[in-house]
Amino acid sequence: MSGEDGQDGRAGQNAQGGHAGQTMARSLWRLLVGSPLRARDVSREQITPVEGLPALSLDALTSVAYGPEAIIAVLAVAGATALHLVLPITIAIVALLAILVFSYRQVIDAYPGGGGAYAVSRDNLGAGASLLAGASLVVDYTLTVAVSIAAGVASLTSAFPGLTGATVPICLAILAVIMLLNLRGLADAARGFLLPTMVFIIGLMIIIAIGLIHPLALHATQPGRSQIPAKALETVSVLLVLKAFSAGCSALTGVEAIANGVPLFKEPRAKRAKFTEVLLGSILGVLLLGLAILADRWHIGPRSGQTVLSQVIGESVGRGWAYYVLSVTITIVLALAANTSFGGLPVLASLLARDNYLPHLFALRDDRQVFASGIWALAILAAALLIAVDGNTLTLIPLYAIGVFTGFTLSQSGLVVHWWRNRPAGWQRRAAINGTGAVVTAAATVIFLITKFTEGAWVVVVAVPTFIFLFTRIHRYYRLAADLLGFDQIPGQPHAEPTIVVVPVAKVSRLVQRAISAALSISDQVIAVISIPEETGEGGEDKERKIRDEWASWNPGVPLRLLRTEYSSVAAPLLAFVDELSKQHTEQIMVLIPVAVPDKLRYRPLHNHFDLVLTAALRDRPNVLTARVEMPLHLPARHRGIKDPREET
Amino acid sequence: MSGEDGQDGRAGQNAQGGHAGQTMARSLWRLLVGSPLRARDVSREQITPVEGLPALSLDALTSVAYGPEAIIAVLAVAGATALHLVLPITIAIVALLAILVFSYRQVIDAYPGGGGAYAVSRDNLGAGASLLAGASLVVDYTLTVAVSIAAGVASLTSAFPGLTGATVPICLAILAVIMLLNLRGLADAARGFLLPTMVFIIGLMIIIAIGLIHPLALHATQPGRSQIPAKALETVSVLLVLKAFSAGCSALTGVEAIANGVPLFKEPRAKRAKFTEVLLGSILGVLLLGLAILADRWHIGPRSGQTVLSQVIGESVGRGWAYYVLSVTITIVLALAANTSFGGLPVLASLLARDNYLPHLFALRDDRQVFASGIWALAILAAALLIAVDGNTLTLIPLYAIGVFTGFTLSQSGLVVHWWRNRPAGWQRRAAINGTGAVVTAAATVIFLITKFTEGAWVVVVAVPTFIFLFTRIHRYYRLAADLLGFDQIPGQPHAEPTIVVVPVAKVSRLVQRAISAALSISDQVIAVISIPEETGEGGEDKERKIRDEWASWNPGVPLRLLRTEYSSVAAPLLAFVDELSKQHTEQIMVLIPVAVPDKLRYRPLHNHFDLVLTAALRDRPNVLTARVEMPLHLPARHRGIKDPREET
Repeated sequence: MSGEDGQDGRAGQNAQGGHAGQTMARSLWRLLVGSPLRARDVSREQITPVEGLPALSLDALTSVAYGPEAIIAVLAVAGATALHLVLPITIAIVALLAILVFSYRQVIDAYPGGGGAYAVSRDNLGAGASLLAGASLVVDYTLTVAVSIAAGVASLTSAFPGLTGATVPICLAILAVIMLLNLRGLADAARGFLLPTMVFIIGLMIIIAIGLIHPLALHATQPGRSQIPAKALETVSVLLVLKAFSAGCSALTGVEAIANGVPLFKEPRAKRAKFTEVLLGSILGVLLLGLAILADRWHIGPRSGQTVLSQVIGESVGRGWAYYVLSVTITIVLALAANTSFGGLPVLASLLARDNYLPHLFALRDDRQVFASGIWALAILAAALLIAVDGNTLTLIPLYAIGVFTGFTLSQSGLVVHWWRNRPAGWQRRAAINGTGAVVTAAATVIFLITKFTEGAWVVVVAVPTFIFLFTRIHRYYRLAADLLGFDQIPGQPHAEPTIVVVPVAKVSRLVQRAISAALSISDQVIAVISIPEETGEGGEDKERKIRDEWASWNPGVPLRLLRTEYSSVAAPLLAFVDELSKQHTEQIMVLIPVAVPDKLRYRPLHNHFDLVLTAALRDRPNVLTARVEMPLHLPARHRGIKDPREET
Repeated sequence: MSGEDGQDGRAGQNAQGGHAGQTMARSLWRLLVGSPLRARDVSREQITPVEGLPALSLDALTSVAYGPEAIIAVLAVAGATALHLVLPITIAIVALLAILVFSYRQVIDAYPGGGGAYAVSRDNLGAGASLLAGASLVVDYTLTVAVSIAAGVASLTSAFPGLTGATVPICLAILAVIMLLNLRGLADAARGFLLPTMVFIIGLMIIIAIGLIHPLALHATQPGRSQIPAKALETVSVLLVLKAFSAGCSALTGVEAIANGVPLFKEPRAKRAKFTEVLLGSILGVLLLGLAILADRWHIGPRSGQTVLSQVIGESVGRGWAYYVLSVTITIVLALAANTSFGGLPVLASLLARDNYLPHLFALRDDRQVFASGIWALAILAAALLIAVDGNTLTLIPLYAIGVFTGFTLSQSGLVVHWWRNRPAGWQRRAAINGTGAVVTAAATVIFLITKFTEGAWVVVVAVPTFIFLFTRIHRYYRLAADLLGFDQIPGQPHAEPTIVVVPVAKVSRLVQRAISAALSISDQVIAVISIPEETGEGGEDKERKIRDEWASWNPGVPLRLLRTEYSSVAAPLLAFVDELSKQHTEQIMVLIPVAVPDKLRYRPLHNHFDLVLTAALRDRPNVLTARVEMPLHLPARHRGIKDPREET
């Protein structure tokens, strides 16, 4: 059914070609998103491992801005002592990270063409699993955008508390900028992202180094500043530890992005991609561990209006220029991390649309060669989420990671099947690694579901099956429609019939002359019709006679039918006439509506848009063709010139 | 140009006739406004003088609810002593009322067909004066609706102070109900209005009688309750008196309505109408004087949350059942007074539209035989006003009456001209009466403008010329358009040309078969075209070959043109092709777009609406005709039946 795609729905914007109807709104839009691009204009530059960090790993790297925070927020409930569990929990998460990195290195080997969870599970586990992967990923791409932007704005408001009141508007403004950049097609301008990414990584490394070298640090003069009551450690239950672990695993989202993006790398692709995966794992692991150690050492707890990361930076280097530079950088890289989701979801949606699981619109590139529908859909969903949670990262964390880890599990399981089916050299070892990944991530997913269910994870549990239901219904429709349209069959031969053209008129004029000319060009069976509403006591007879006389004195060679009506609508009698005509004749019927179109938009409301009313009404009659005959009215400069039709004859 | 009217823009709702496309929203709307009416279904019942009060005089009668209030509000600024001026000012207003009543009795004689200020000044004073009258009346009809509703709700909230917070929503709800009743066409159900009108008139008469008979009344135990500081009378300036007079003259609006509505009366029309005018004048005069005497006697001043009328009623009969019955009745009759403006403005707008001063849409009756556009316009304007002033009557009073009095002046002056021109028996006496009316109302208008200018009257001074400017611009456009369309000329003969039909296709299917059949029915010059976006590195060649092979094996007898494009839009190359075609050929060109239309609305988003994109783009090319060929898809019940076209051939 996707063959139908080419038929419908490209953006109308580039149907301009210098014509008059171009409005200011359209020009403004062009200014924002740029002019149409050729497919070959789109750069396909290829990246190195270092460039791979800003291009594919920002989602994962920037999660240090909210992962440790999420752990601390959970543990703080049990009192200050519980905060000592931050470090062991972080170690567990880093261990999980290591397993994921090695699993995904194998995904790169197996799918050098880009191994997204949707594609891998479709190939190896079947349609059902691939839909589960697709739905999970849709949910998590949306969450990534919302979480990253919210965390970025939290970093900004930590540094500049005066902005706190405007959290949601700032979030939405950042989202709008990201959306516009993506509609322009600048999403993969990864090289431009290199500088902030490096400032971010190196800056945090330095912060951690300073923190570790100066045990109570240069500025950390008040250890134990946290105001949380010291409860006994016994009150920290296993459930709480698992909760903290689940919350912290939000730091692992995005680890899969490099494996999805293998085709972006320079040759040898797989090798470079695998190296990038290790690079990402190492940096992320070091950052997570370093932050955990410092948070533990400095007794950092949740503080309103101050992110954990902001507190760590403040403790380490004080609130000088370095603090502000890093805070703003964090905001920028988090916005860029949201941007990487905009690279992911539209492509996923286009794959789903090609497989008939989403409307075909999602598979169409717009005139900037981007999947505009997917970009819009993601922006709208993320905006709704941000508004719903009031721009608060911690409200979103319980929903987060479940989708990603479902994707992890499915693609690792798929890989196991893949190795089993293909059995390359050393397949047992490979299958074992991916098997471990699958089991561990499956276990993590279950832990997430149990520990976070009441805190919001139920939303995901509702949303994912809803998406799957939607996908299958759409798929069913496209299958039925393809049947009805007879795709992949040779249809019968077309056959011609004579055509009767009906021209609704109101008053003899050049417009009617033009319409009758157009009608006679189509068929010699033309009927002009006029509706005359009966106006009580206003001499309908006279009006009728006047019209007949006018027509007779013009004598255009076409009969005029007068349709009297007691109702005020002039459309209804015309429709009745057309229905009667199609009952009595086997001929094809076409209604040709004359329309005067002033060249200035502001005059349009002065014409009653009978053509729209009639066209809408005739839509219910698929056997009747409807067309408009336009006569442009050029006002007021006469020399711009409407031809006098009498000169033509 | 108004002959064009019949052509365009009747409501699409009654294009239903039992077809499938009827949505729930449409059904709900039908439920609210009722099904279409024949012109002769609309009752033309004729009324007696007593029925004339609710039908035509409510605006004037109900102004006792805000007129005295407006006087007191102005005088109170100068202190309690100034309140003694209420009575003399009211006497002056009642004298003006008497002059108006006698002037309008003569208007009835001169214009038994209904003598609105617009019609009278158009006939006697020329186009300029009639536009001034039209613009003034538009402004004041809107103000009447807003003032009446706001005063009605003020009466309600005086009785039930708990409702004060919801003032604006209650105003808008009442407005919505009135609008819907008018869209149903129940505006002239005047007989139903008789009961509340009589309760209102008789109730207030009794209140006044009680107040006058029992000097300090049954319940008026606390005379002088007003808390306004007693200033010396000397501080009351002439300006203040004039201001109070101007404000009080808002009570005289609506006196002209009977003269406008003469055709509604039973024969002998003029006589009955003139009697009604006197009846109205007497009742209104008595009520105004009575209220002024009581307000003076009981030292009634402005009190927040309590209208003056509410205070008078409370003083007279106490806050028992009678108080509540009267308060609610006042709300009802004020809403009904707003309703009479809905009788006036749409008719005025239809006259302006017939004279080409407003869009012709305003001259069209909708399928309930009412001027729906005028009703909507009035409701929207009044709603905007009510929201802008927060439902406060006193904010609107300074804007009010200027328009009405301008209309008074123009129609009285017009009458003087009328008598002068026709010179019937006793024309000098008649001209003298109308001349007096013209001079007095002109003087009042000037007083209003001076005294109320800074309090809001400037809005009217801006709005009226703006409307006049709008009217003349619209008039100019219609004159130019009529020229361009060659109205009142016999156009040249139509002439036929051969037609080339272009059918954009995407993939061989039954839909394309149907479209090609339709195209061959129109012309034997049919070209099928297909746009193929060049997808870098995705085997465009293969795709092209596949399409060519498919077409060749179908062999529908029509050539297929492949349009390659480097851009992603499939519309642009098609438009370029059509442009090229129309450059190279003199033939008429028609684009026939195949569209699959699922019968269930929820499936529509699954089809990309390429037809809309293409139709919109082709609108800029008036020489190209565009039509859709629809193929309905019936889902999923196959037996509802799509015919297999192979069976037909």
